[in-house]
Amino acid sequence: MSRYSLGLDFGTSSARALIVDIATGREAGCGSAPFRRGEDGVLTEDRDPNIARQHPADWEEALQGAVLSALERARADQGFSSDRIVGIGIDATASTPLPVSADLTPLAVDPSFASDPDALAWLWKDHTSHAEAEEITEAARREHPEYLVTCGGSYSSEWYFAKLLRALRAAPRVMAAAADWLEEGDWIAGRLTGATSPRDVKRNICAAGHKAMYHPSWGFPAVDFLSRIDSRLGEWCRTRLPSKAYTSDTVAGTLSASWAARLGLREGTPIAVAMIDAHAGAVGAGIRPGVLVRILGTSACDMLVHPESEKLPDIPGISGIASGSILPGHHGLEAGQAAVGDLLKWFVREFAAVEGNNYEELAARAARLRPGESGLLALDWNNGNRSILADPRLTGCLVGQTLRTRPHEVYRALVEATAFGARTILERFEEYGVRAREVVVCGGIAGKSPFFLQVQADVLGRPIAVSRAAETCALGAAVLGAVAAARSFERGKGERGPRVEDAQAAMTGIRPDRYEPDPAAKAVYDELYSLYRTLHDAFGTPRGPLRPVMRSLLEVRERIRGTVPGSPGGAPHSSP
Amino acid sequence: MSRYSLGLDFGTSSARALIVDIATGREAGCGSAPFRRGEDGVLTEDRDPNIARQHPADWEEALQGAVLSALERARADQGFSSDRIVGIGIDATASTPLPVSADLTPLAVDPSFASDPDALAWLWKDHTSHAEAEEITEAARREHPEYLVTCGGSYSSEWYFAKLLRALRAAPRVMAAAADWLEEGDWIAGRLTGATSPRDVKRNICAAGHKAMYHPSWGFPAVDFLSRIDSRLGEWCRTRLPSKAYTSDTVAGTLSASWAARLGLREGTPIAVAMIDAHAGAVGAGIRPGVLVRILGTSACDMLVHPESEKLPDIPGISGIASGSILPGHHGLEAGQAAVGDLLKWFVREFAAVEGNNYEELAARAARLRPGESGLLALDWNNGNRSILADPRLTGCLVGQTLRTRPHEVYRALVEATAFGARTILERFEEYGVRAREVVVCGGIAGKSPFFLQVQADVLGRPIAVSRAAETCALGAAVLGAVAAARSFERGKGERGPRVEDAQAAMTGIRPDRYEPDPAAKAVYDELYSLYRTLHDAFGTPRGPLRPVMRSLLEVRERIRGTVPGSPGGAPHSSP
Repeated sequence: MSRYSLGLDFGTSSARALIVDIATGREAGCGSAPFRRGEDGVLTEDRDPNIARQHPADWEEALQGAVLSALERARADQGFSSDRIVGIGIDATASTPLPVSADLTPLAVDPSFASDPDALAWLWKDHTSHAEAEEITEAARREHPEYLVTCGGSYSSEWYFAKLLRALRAAPRVMAAAADWLEEGDWIAGRLTGATSPRDVKRNICAAGHKAMYHPSWGFPAVDFLSRIDSRLGEWCRTRLPSKAYTSDTVAGTLSASWAARLGLREGTPIAVAMIDAHAGAVGAGIRPGVLVRILGTSACDMLVHPESEKLPDIPGISGIASGSILPGHHGLEAGQAAVGDLLKWFVREFAAVEGNNYEELAARAARLRPGESGLLALDWNNGNRSILADPRLTGCLVGQTLRTRPHEVYRALVEATAFGARTILERFEEYGVRAREVVVCGGIAGKSPFFLQVQADVLGRPIAVSRAAETCALGAAVLGAVAAARSFERGKGERGPRVEDAQAAMTGIRPDRYEPDPAAKAVYDELYSLYRTLHDAFGTPRGPLRPVMRSLLEVRERIRGTVPGSPGGAPHSSP
Repeated sequence: MSRYSLGLDFGTSSARALIVDIATGREAGCGSAPFRRGEDGVLTEDRDPNIARQHPADWEEALQGAVLSALERARADQGFSSDRIVGIGIDATASTPLPVSADLTPLAVDPSFASDPDALAWLWKDHTSHAEAEEITEAARREHPEYLVTCGGSYSSEWYFAKLLRALRAAPRVMAAAADWLEEGDWIAGRLTGATSPRDVKRNICAAGHKAMYHPSWGFPAVDFLSRIDSRLGEWCRTRLPSKAYTSDTVAGTLSASWAARLGLREGTPIAVAMIDAHAGAVGAGIRPGVLVRILGTSACDMLVHPESEKLPDIPGISGIASGSILPGHHGLEAGQAAVGDLLKWFVREFAAVEGNNYEELAARAARLRPGESGLLALDWNNGNRSILADPRLTGCLVGQTLRTRPHEVYRALVEATAFGARTILERFEEYGVRAREVVVCGGIAGKSPFFLQVQADVLGRPIAVSRAAETCALGAAVLGAVAAARSFERGKGERGPRVEDAQAAMTGIRPDRYEPDPAAKAVYDELYSLYRTLHDAFGTPRGPLRPVMRSLLEVRERIRGTVPGSPGGAPHSSP
């Protein structure tokens, strides 16, 4: 008699629910539902392009829709019944904090805040707090450089304290009414478990560690430090920041009677502490020491884990190193590329949309080129550089065009650029002693483009395996649900308890086919990569001779347009 | 009673004939005819992409067609009759040498050479002699650096001696049959005047000075020097190179009876010594000291003249400085950009050909952007750099792309890049004391794109005037025809004789409307130009930190493709 876990994955535009057999990893059913408000779930304002908000009702409605749809499909599965779902795991975007009242009700559903965008969830890609992020970075550099080591050297406008500080300054009415601001994943876990106060909600260490400067050795940042940035920030946090954040092998609570009824699941089902969506993807792809997981979507996240028992040096340019953020007992290491699928989509949409030259045909033509044949070389920075330069104000570059250059050649150069960017990250990890013997990819591109993956294998010079799950983030959440279930059943059976690694071993896997590097292609790419690094270092490093060019172009552009500074095309983020 | 001059302009794909009133510059009639053989007049071979040949029969047939058509139109003009045409001028591409027999018959019309491409004219853009060009450059560097000063520091595969040396090595049958190799313009003048031997043909100083290392102070290069490169080259030249080349205010001869009959013109009409087509364009645009003429076509030629009575330093990076090549008594200075119209055409054809996004709409959208608004910056090197880097193996570069960059923004960046390239040339001239108080443009783009010209005015920071002639090269040839006529009539009337300047003053002019620089736009472009120069110097100068990138990409490309080296997209040349 099979038992199942339910993984809930909350992305930027939709939610997915995946029901997975705990013993075998077999998927019994998957459902998804879009966020209905705003544009693909994102509420914007014409007056300020930095605003990106989300309505929490979208989360709850899509959660219900996705679960009911997954259950519907699973019922076709022999032997399945909904009461065989014994654990639930959750992942969500971060940092996406939501202002809530004392009983966890979102301010956004209060009619008196119906027209106030500041009462909505502030989505990770909301950049209204860029000035506050810089203030926090400056202060941390002066007083607590250790706070920055774990987040790539600078605090981002995408993150919790920047958003909170911005709200304290710009949204006094919201702050007066809010009891607290909770991360999306924590709030959803709180609602499902029927928590009635923010104090009862366990904060997940993944969001806390990567986005809120939390570390087990010091906890959340010191209130005095926050006060010196702005006394209101210190005051707010003094009474609200908890002392501890939890790894996702912790049980957050159990499913409340009302949500059990609404979803058609069993009351009391254990629910795991949440995780950031990309990190759940790493879990679902089978991450373990020595395995690099690349989540390839609109952007790319590179994830590694390193046992906390082993020494780990600071790795400059890596966007996040957080204790227990992916696997308990391991440092979770996160790096990434700010545009991958987005880069290719942009090029095809804007520059290759000629008749008969559709995406598939373009990709097929690009695939038939040999490495080096086009004479082109691109930088993959159209959306800034997340790793290893951690500079959102870098832009794209294409070199080598002639009067005979054709769109499919540029397309291939962009595909190659994303692979060169990946190699830069991989080499940075390895320079600092974190090895990646294997590479496993997942996400939208992983399932769709053999050409893209072959280029990755050839450039990285190692085999590329593909996660067998179509929805790897949701599978990761289901793995966490399985651990929560085991913890609940086996409570008191020993200190160690069930491990995420065991559930991973049972539930995750790779496809039988791998992409093997071609030695001849690898040799050409070694040459091209050295040229890529020449461009990369010249345009991107602090002492690079062309360093001023991209930044000055943005400054001129902003002055002429009269816009506020920000990243060129939407800043880097950790959601794939 | 008006008198007229006939200007004959031989381009790469067609010939034009323009009948102009000598006293007023009024155009009585213009005709043109395409070269019918090959692709747009260019005969190529699949086995070698460097081959570009032309059939001399095309020249004669198109000459006749264009003249008859111009006469047809002129007859509608009150008071015109063909016997009022009192002088003929000729311009043609160079270096386009043609092997001829002892009586000036082209080998190409000899049936025994009908299928031999080496017996055709070797068009300026034929690059089969790239290795020979390098040998000549090396030898001149060692022994006669003064030979290179006048041609930008390196001898080109487009030029006379490289082609001759190549033919001596690769086409022995042709060389055995040929009495001599004449430049296209000289051969046409020889045919029209009924010359019966290459020895009777006056060589034009414009092609000789810019393409064959001729200088009045030393004549053609020393035979000993040519012998040390290859004894066959010295041997060939010893008996054939004349001692003198002639400025185009010299009368080459008079129209022969047979050609007079064929064209319907008066026998004995004086014909001027020929000139290179671009240089004739400078004459037709009214070039004089202090006036920069820019011929804007597929590529751009920048022309200045400097009195020979005044000191002129060597100007590095200028592609040609030749005595009397444009105006007698003046140094003719030539620089250029290897792709201008071609660059825009390439982008529109390959990357902006989406429905409803046609050229006009794209240009209109680009015109509505403000300087600096796109955040983009491009290098205009898709066809190499002719001036001031004189490196055909440079390629394009685009910087500043984001995920929101649109085709009309890139289009504008390319238009701006061509203007920045022009400014680089202008500043180089002025650094060395050759001022350009005025800029006059002519050529295909000049008549068609106010947006393009406004950007030029704003970037160069000075007014741009437009030549009033639609066919400025043909008008320049007609100016030379008028001088030849005056010389013939006034022979013996004094040493000085009629001057080209006087005919220019009467026959050429600019349109009443100028493009005035906008100070606000100029200020932004000053900033962008400094960034352009940063890119330019980093990628293009010998010690530039990114210097190896473009060259290495080409080397990899050529190795992978298995092709012989050449310029990336067809090398720079002096024909617009």
